[in-house]
Amino acid sequence: MHIDELPTPALWADLDVLESNIAEMARRLPGNRLRPHVKAHKTTALAALQYEIGHQGFTCATPREVLGMAEAGLGDDLLLANETVDVQRLSAMAASNARVTVAVDSQATIDAATKAGIKECVIDIRVGFRCGCEVEEAEALAELARNSKISVRGVMGYEGHAMGVVDLERRRELVETAMARLCEAHDAVGGELITGGGTGTHAINTWVNEIQAGSYVLMDTAYNEQTDQPFRQGLFLQSTVVSVAEKFAVCDAGLKSQGMDHGNPSWVGGEVLFCSDEHTNVIPEKPLEVGDRVSFVPAHIDPTMAKHQSLHIVRNEQVIDRWDIDLRHW
Amino acid sequence: MHIDELPTPALWADLDVLESNIAEMARRLPGNRLRPHVKAHKTTALAALQYEIGHQGFTCATPREVLGMAEAGLGDDLLLANETVDVQRLSAMAASNARVTVAVDSQATIDAATKAGIKECVIDIRVGFRCGCEVEEAEALAELARNSKISVRGVMGYEGHAMGVVDLERRRELVETAMARLCEAHDAVGGELITGGGTGTHAINTWVNEIQAGSYVLMDTAYNEQTDQPFRQGLFLQSTVVSVAEKFAVCDAGLKSQGMDHGNPSWVGGEVLFCSDEHTNVIPEKPLEVGDRVSFVPAHIDPTMAKHQSLHIVRNEQVIDRWDIDLRHW
Repeated sequence: MHIDELPTPALWADLDVLESNIAEMARRLPGNRLRPHVKAHKTTALAALQYEIGHQGFTCATPREVLGMAEAGLGDDLLLANETVDVQRLSAMAASNARVTVAVDSQATIDAATKAGIKECVIDIRVGFRCGCEVEEAEALAELARNSKISVRGVMGYEGHAMGVVDLERRRELVETAMARLCEAHDAVGGELITGGGTGTHAINTWVNEIQAGSYVLMDTAYNEQTDQPFRQGLFLQSTVVSVAEKFAVCDAGLKSQGMDHGNPSWVGGEVLFCSDEHTNVIPEKPLEVGDRVSFVPAHIDPTMAKHQSLHIVRNEQVIDRWDIDLRHW
Repeated sequence: MHIDELPTPALWADLDVLESNIAEMARRLPGNRLRPHVKAHKTTALAALQYEIGHQGFTCATPREVLGMAEAGLGDDLLLANETVDVQRLSAMAASNARVTVAVDSQATIDAATKAGIKECVIDIRVGFRCGCEVEEAEALAELARNSKISVRGVMGYEGHAMGVVDLERRRELVETAMARLCEAHDAVGGELITGGGTGTHAINTWVNEIQAGSYVLMDTAYNEQTDQPFRQGLFLQSTVVSVAEKFAVCDAGLKSQGMDHGNPSWVGGEVLFCSDEHTNVIPEKPLEVGDRVSFVPAHIDPTMAKHQSLHIVRNEQVIDRWDIDLRHW
């Protein structure tokens, strides 16, 4: 099927770009130096490609992602890089056939993990404005975990506030300050893992020993502003022009089909005016007709993927496969 | 089950509020003076309540919504208030057991409807910055439709640009200007339907003969700013506190679980700082502990509902039912 025959709105990935991004990252951070984050794509078929190229450990944001990866046979070493006190979900993860490590940052999260039979954790250190304990709390929490028969594999700290900063020097400063805290905590906690980072900091965060990047596979407009990124845009939102006015055209992919927290999508053919529930209005450089196709670049990949049931896989404008986005919801 | 036992994030509706909002609207706009828009809730179980109270016609934004309503036996009179040239989907709607009317605004949309065997349409008039033909094009399009054996039931015009305006007088002016265009087109086109409006204009749009309101059932923070609204907030996003810092707390309902195009959610217990993929950070007025529950009010109901598989139905803090949000996707 040609891409222009897809019912719209439809999400599609350029397989050449996707494979090239995966290969480039595996060259930069081979094997377990990368722990790919599945929250960016929520797709086990895509995670399988990351596994095949040598990354056997994965990062997850939700219990659902952990359980789905385990079911898909990709559970060699899954890190839930997020806190939960949901004993039922923790128990399901503990009972899965996967090696599961969870992030903990408080007595309550350790107690819940203990109750559920979780065997391994990392101490999550607050290095920004997210989850995590203070550096000076880390040692006591590690002791509490060990006393609860949970092995402490090391520390985690996600410098999310640095991730999208366009200026490289500013980004580097933010990472350095954050990672100084993480390394101080690691001195107190021990363990083999110092885990953190993401696509935006993968090349400059030299303090951690594994990077949790996810967006690099498909990219979005936010990351494309960083000129130091070697990865190419691979994710597109296909739409159909359904109405043409004198000065603008209306396309059938609106805000229900893409993440809006980073703003409007972009489009090579003209200006994006605004998105409503089911429509995106554009000012085209060349006249459009009803029925024409427009491919948008979503501003934020993670919530965009989470809104779709499937990702269409495209090579040379032909749809050659369709992958379930099977790690959605909670 | 008590609401605090729900796995989070979870969407829930207060059934007392929901029933009261439905009853209030049915008092104001009984029977076919309201054509409830299902895009706001995408839930046939909820549409069934609107049907039972006397609204037999419904408005849909997508072919999927039309087909789902037909399957649910709610297809007495379904209006696809949106343009499509997808002949396959139009054919499925034409072949359904429902009475289906589609909006058209161009030769291309009429040709697609004709090819698919659609029997009825309304001429969509541009009264703002959305789909619709110009007023002076309406008569010729109606003639084209009739010549294609498609019955023209009247005109449609959605004054979306007025809908969220907080100031009542300004909103009224915008509606009046928009509806002058719609009425002029109706003079040329004829037919029994003059359809448009929404929750924000339901009380002031006296030009149309049916109102396409949807949000009134559950409401959101955007509509709650309009002081002339009689409807109460009925939709909440339940979250669990998973991490507590000195100055803020982190809750496990982030931007993947709510629409962000109208900004952050609100919370009666304090200030909402920001949302990330899986978290919302708050500054609570009273100290929170890990495991505490926080109910957010989403800023925009439509995309929030579209992100969840189910809506939990709550009365007196007890979860008494769970409805599938079964009209999602495309």
